[in-house]
Amino acid sequence: MIVITKPNITEERIQEIVAHIERANVQAHVSRGTDRTVIGIIGKAEPTLAEHLRQMKGVDNVVKISKSYKLASRDFHPDDTVIEINGVKIGGEHMVVMGGPCAVESPQQIDEIARLVKAAGGQVLRGGAFKPRTGPYSFQGVGVEGLIMMAEAGKKHGLLTITEVMTPEYVDVCAEYADILQVGTRNMQNFDLLRKLGTIRKPVLLKRGFSATYDEFLNAAEYILAGGNPNVMLCERGIRTFETYTRNTLDLSAIPVLQQLSHLPVISDPSHGTGRRELVEPMAKASVAAGANGLIIEMHTDPDNSMTGDGVQSLFPDQFAGLLKDLEKLAALVGKKFDTAKESAEAFAVWQK
Amino acid sequence: MIVITKPNITEERIQEIVAHIERANVQAHVSRGTDRTVIGIIGKAEPTLAEHLRQMKGVDNVVKISKSYKLASRDFHPDDTVIEINGVKIGGEHMVVMGGPCAVESPQQIDEIARLVKAAGGQVLRGGAFKPRTGPYSFQGVGVEGLIMMAEAGKKHGLLTITEVMTPEYVDVCAEYADILQVGTRNMQNFDLLRKLGTIRKPVLLKRGFSATYDEFLNAAEYILAGGNPNVMLCERGIRTFETYTRNTLDLSAIPVLQQLSHLPVISDPSHGTGRRELVEPMAKASVAAGANGLIIEMHTDPDNSMTGDGVQSLFPDQFAGLLKDLEKLAALVGKKFDTAKESAEAFAVWQK
Amino acid sequence: MIVITKPNITEERIQEIVAHIERANVQAHVSRGTDRTVIGIIGKAEPTLAEHLRQMKGVDNVVKISKSYKLASRDFHPDDTVIEINGVKIGGEHMVVMGGPCAVESPQQIDEIARLVKAAGGQVLRGGAFKPRTGPYSFQGVGVEGLIMMAEAGKKHGLLTITEVMTPEYVDVCAEYADILQVGTRNMQNFDLLRKLGTIRKPVLLKRGFSATYDEFLNAAEYILAGGNPNVMLCERGIRTFETYTRNTLDLSAIPVLQQLSHLPVISDPSHGTGRRELVEPMAKASVAAGANGLIIEMHTDPDNSMTGDGVQSLFPDQFAGLLKDLEKLAALVGKKFDTAKESAEAFAVWQK
Amino acid sequence: MIVITKPNITEERIQEIVAHIERANVQAHVSRGTDRTVIGIIGKAEPTLAEHLRQMKGVDNVVKISKSYKLASRDFHPDDTVIEINGVKIGGEHMVVMGGPCAVESPQQIDEIARLVKAAGGQVLRGGAFKPRTGPYSFQGVGVEGLIMMAEAGKKHGLLTITEVMTPEYVDVCAEYADILQVGTRNMQNFDLLRKLGTIRKPVLLKRGFSATYDEFLNAAEYILAGGNPNVMLCERGIRTFETYTRNTLDLSAIPVLQQLSHLPVISDPSHGTGRRELVEPMAKASVAAGANGLIIEMHTDPDNSMTGDGVQSLFPDQFAGLLKDLEKLAALVGKKFDTAKESAEAFAVWQK
Repeated sequence: MIVITKPNITEERIQEIVAHIERANVQAHVSRGTDRTVIGIIGKAEPTLAEHLRQMKGVDNVVKISKSYKLASRDFHPDDTVIEINGVKIGGEHMVVMGGPCAVESPQQIDEIARLVKAAGGQVLRGGAFKPRTGPYSFQGVGVEGLIMMAEAGKKHGLLTITEVMTPEYVDVCAEYADILQVGTRNMQNFDLLRKLGTIRKPVLLKRGFSATYDEFLNAAEYILAGGNPNVMLCERGIRTFETYTRNTLDLSAIPVLQQLSHLPVISDPSHGTGRRELVEPMAKASVAAGANGLIIEMHTDPDNSMTGDGVQSLFPDQFAGLLKDLEKLAALVGKKFDTAKESAEAFAVWQK
Repeated sequence: MIVITKPNITEERIQEIVAHIERANVQAHVSRGTDRTVIGIIGKAEPTLAEHLRQMKGVDNVVKISKSYKLASRDFHPDDTVIEINGVKIGGEHMVVMGGPCAVESPQQIDEIARLVKAAGGQVLRGGAFKPRTGPYSFQGVGVEGLIMMAEAGKKHGLLTITEVMTPEYVDVCAEYADILQVGTRNMQNFDLLRKLGTIRKPVLLKRGFSATYDEFLNAAEYILAGGNPNVMLCERGIRTFETYTRNTLDLSAIPVLQQLSHLPVISDPSHGTGRRELVEPMAKASVAAGANGLIIEMHTDPDNSMTGDGVQSLFPDQFAGLLKDLEKLAALVGKKFDTAKESAEAFAVWQK
Repeated sequence: MIVITKPNITEERIQEIVAHIERANVQAHVSRGTDRTVIGIIGKAEPTLAEHLRQMKGVDNVVKISKSYKLASRDFHPDDTVIEINGVKIGGEHMVVMGGPCAVESPQQIDEIARLVKAAGGQVLRGGAFKPRTGPYSFQGVGVEGLIMMAEAGKKHGLLTITEVMTPEYVDVCAEYADILQVGTRNMQNFDLLRKLGTIRKPVLLKRGFSATYDEFLNAAEYILAGGNPNVMLCERGIRTFETYTRNTLDLSAIPVLQQLSHLPVISDPSHGTGRRELVEPMAKASVAAGANGLIIEMHTDPDNSMTGDGVQSLFPDQFAGLLKDLEKLAALVGKKFDTAKESAEAFAVWQK
Repeated sequence: MIVITKPNITEERIQEIVAHIERANVQAHVSRGTDRTVIGIIGKAEPTLAEHLRQMKGVDNVVKISKSYKLASRDFHPDDTVIEINGVKIGGEHMVVMGGPCAVESPQQIDEIARLVKAAGGQVLRGGAFKPRTGPYSFQGVGVEGLIMMAEAGKKHGLLTITEVMTPEYVDVCAEYADILQVGTRNMQNFDLLRKLGTIRKPVLLKRGFSATYDEFLNAAEYILAGGNPNVMLCERGIRTFETYTRNTLDLSAIPVLQQLSHLPVISDPSHGTGRRELVEPMAKASVAAGANGLIIEMHTDPDNSMTGDGVQSLFPDQFAGLLKDLEKLAALVGKKFDTAKESAEAFAVWQK
């Protein structure tokens, strides 16, 4: 951490700042420039020290050199985190595909889609039982019933399941039925929810807030990790920009950046990231080429009649299957192993007994 | 609502769309252009109809003409909402100032600040007991104790109190101690929290998400209103842009826009909106000139040592008092009545018995 | 300037960096931290030194402490720049209003509007002869003819004139006819145009690029100043954000920020900054309350039929006159002197002889 | 085009709007809704009609259905444009790589880099002779000398050349020496420059403005096409967002979107798009997977000492060569033919005679 003073600061002010630093049990190293003085801080300071220093008179800026997150950082954990759930590995060289509808609508719907996700080579069934909607009059999901329908479909077809949890009080019931809990983009900084997810051990897929910086994203993951749950996946799902043609702007640089800053698996969501069916395929491929550890893709058997209106970004089952075939070849080119249908069939054999 | 088709759509597709519309018990009005067909929908459609139509084959775009929020709309409620709390009026021609520290730190701190807010002519004491922090290792607030300290300071000095609530399960305890509950920018779309706030009657100050559109902001307010709580204030607190010199970019156009679209009071937060003490004064004045119904301003007796690091954006007590004097004159020029110290002293007389 | 190294850099690398710095005739001050080393640079370095250091192996970041612009900086020129043109002062305590149509359309149109701008108390007539348009098929302005029409209208009614210049080769002809040359938002970083404007002495109003940072904006002004033309005004005209309800988001914080960083006058453009007539009045008032040195406002006698389509953001003449009356009172409250009709009539008396 | 009226508009106003439309020699089709009226316009209207209608009293919104650009649109030109320059094809199934330094520095530097670009399998040599720089005191390029150095290096090594032109008056000299002229991001809406480029026939690579929408980007291309020059390539080079870790946010969705809306080749610039060397490789691969028609990549033999400071985003020659090998395999997977070293050697044989 470095403190940069305002020009022409008095010696007395400098000494006040130094004294403040030393009271925090770290060392101050003063460097007087032509018009400004720079004070380096040596040692492990409390996170609040920077905040206090920034407020002191005569201080122009405080530059943090170390990151504010620790457990999420690759500095702390150099090897890739690989999360294993019932034989399916997520992270490192393993690539997964999560597929399914925006919302669970009925037992028939989710069962049929699960069958198709499995047949196409997917490993995880996605589906929302609780839906975050911009307005209160839109369809809000079928609730706990949906969790049950999805758990049954997953079990029957040998798929893991992932579903969104929106509030701390529903964490336990979601964890009972689903294999992976998803935190949506609007809840990335719902700190009470993150803290609650830190108390369980079920894997969590944390979606990036649509205007969150990489630093904020990793700090949000840190909340879960700091609570004791090491099973966190990061998900890039598009950021908000000035462009309105696409629903969001999928930031694929996030994939290599997050993998460099952190050891956690990074999943890409080209469906929400673009909001347009015809862009899902090229952006899914681009995600894999950029090094994603997995994809979460919306697929629907009847997208024209999906209950949430997200059908416009859902692939048809045959498109989904075709895409997965292409992804398998692409994954091989970038050193990823995509556990296709055949392999996962074996992996699931034990689990289904 | 208008459906715009893709170019050269077949007559059969048009009839499918028309049939879909008519099944929703509204009328379709077909207008065939040179290369596209436009289908107007006449009557009150369910909110999900647009979503379904957008997904249908042959549909290029669906343009909503009516807004998705109703109770928050000025179309629905032409007169300004004026919220009265213990004699203090918020909304319409009445202007209020809410002042206080970022976080409640100790009984002495909040008592002294309350005394100064009151003396300067403020009507509401702000202070956080639960603090949303980007990282898990930062100071997270003193919790329920802080609510009690603030309630006592407010009562003693004749001020209303406002505090942030972050999760549904704390709504009741916050409502017990504070006069106004604040929803922070990161929770603007925490729908479970909004729903819970719809079940109480305490006034709610809803802060705009830092990347939320006006439409999303009003839809978030709609969640609370639709639950049955009509006492909602909107708060512009800065949006995220590419600029890093300021903490946020305070969007003052939001004030006249929201007042035009909605009847709810609009409060401006120049402290978080800029993140720099020297910008609070000009932006507070600009907010009043733009027509704000009130301001929420951070003030601290010892900003260099505030526990959250927000001291850099806190005014010193004398700056705060000087600013309020200037705001009184400005308010008069734009047709607002700023209930200054003297008037509010009377207003609070009854309340304090 | 401070160089922050990567963690665990070798002593040899540090010495390479130090040697590089010393070759640039400035001093290096090494400060070794627990895992990183910080090297302060003392003395006036060439602007390219930072760029080179940033590229060196072992360097993590280079933090500039001094600004890259000098002539535009208040550090260099503590007093406000006041530009005087034919008795009209712009900058410091003086406030001006520039009004007129988006585009000059005909001699009658510009003459009638000039008369009304003058009567309302404005000092400068705005009008475009060359129009930058998003698409090639839109109306592109009437060209040099328009410059002549506007010069005549300005002279007849005792108003200064301002017009946009889009390319270096038209600078001379625009400077011949207009009193102030405007650089539009799309040309803020048209460096050849800026260089050319540095060679003349006519005042230049430089509009902020719609996605330019404050730093880039001041560096653009520096191009003109460095060329030898000290008469530059900065104009905030709205930035591009995710919001689509308004045409741009007028960033009023820019006013106090730019006035703090620079000595140049800051003008606000609430017409382009909002793109909606009903927002011009509140944002004009807010601009003055925030401390603007002037306003540039679109006004049209027949906005429904303006040739550029910007009529939607143009005030009607009576609205314009009413607004100026209100601005006069507001200006007085924030320590600005608005040279109203009466005063400017005298100021122009000499000029018109 | 559709006109949406304000609620409860009078019949008289509707007739005024209809009359205005009919005077423009197109048909009006009125559709009266519950509270609003929608007026469809049938026939080919002038571009200014929308602008005028938007300004009329009683009009709430005008929705354009047709696009404002024509020649750039795929509707107008369904087949991919393939630009052939001396045997090198750009567009359609052909993929090209343009490599080289940010700036031409010396004959030795550009010759050595050209040799390496060629050996790695690149087809085009990039290099700036005129550099757009944020501040006036940074290195501004070596000028015309640089054009000559680059032309010689290109000729000697059998590479096409591309260089940036910043102002209309330099178009001719740049066109004399370079095979492709580049318009930089800051000049995307320098309309005089675009018009001038429409008058020549040399291919133009038009970079997207860093905050330009797809629509604005295609309209800028339209300026060049409308002038008579059909040889335009579009280049995605990163947009400005709130993220500061990367220099820009490379928007890869732009690739499939632009290819869908337009027939022009789309080139990706992962160097400026990220600003960090370690991100160039993953984003180059992702660009190809997303369907890019080519890449423009910075490569430098001594990036630590590049004169512009862009060395931080330049690949080392061996990284560049390794990347091109990987791209060749990826290109094959997405149906692109990457004209590698061997093939291009033949293609250039004729050209070099």
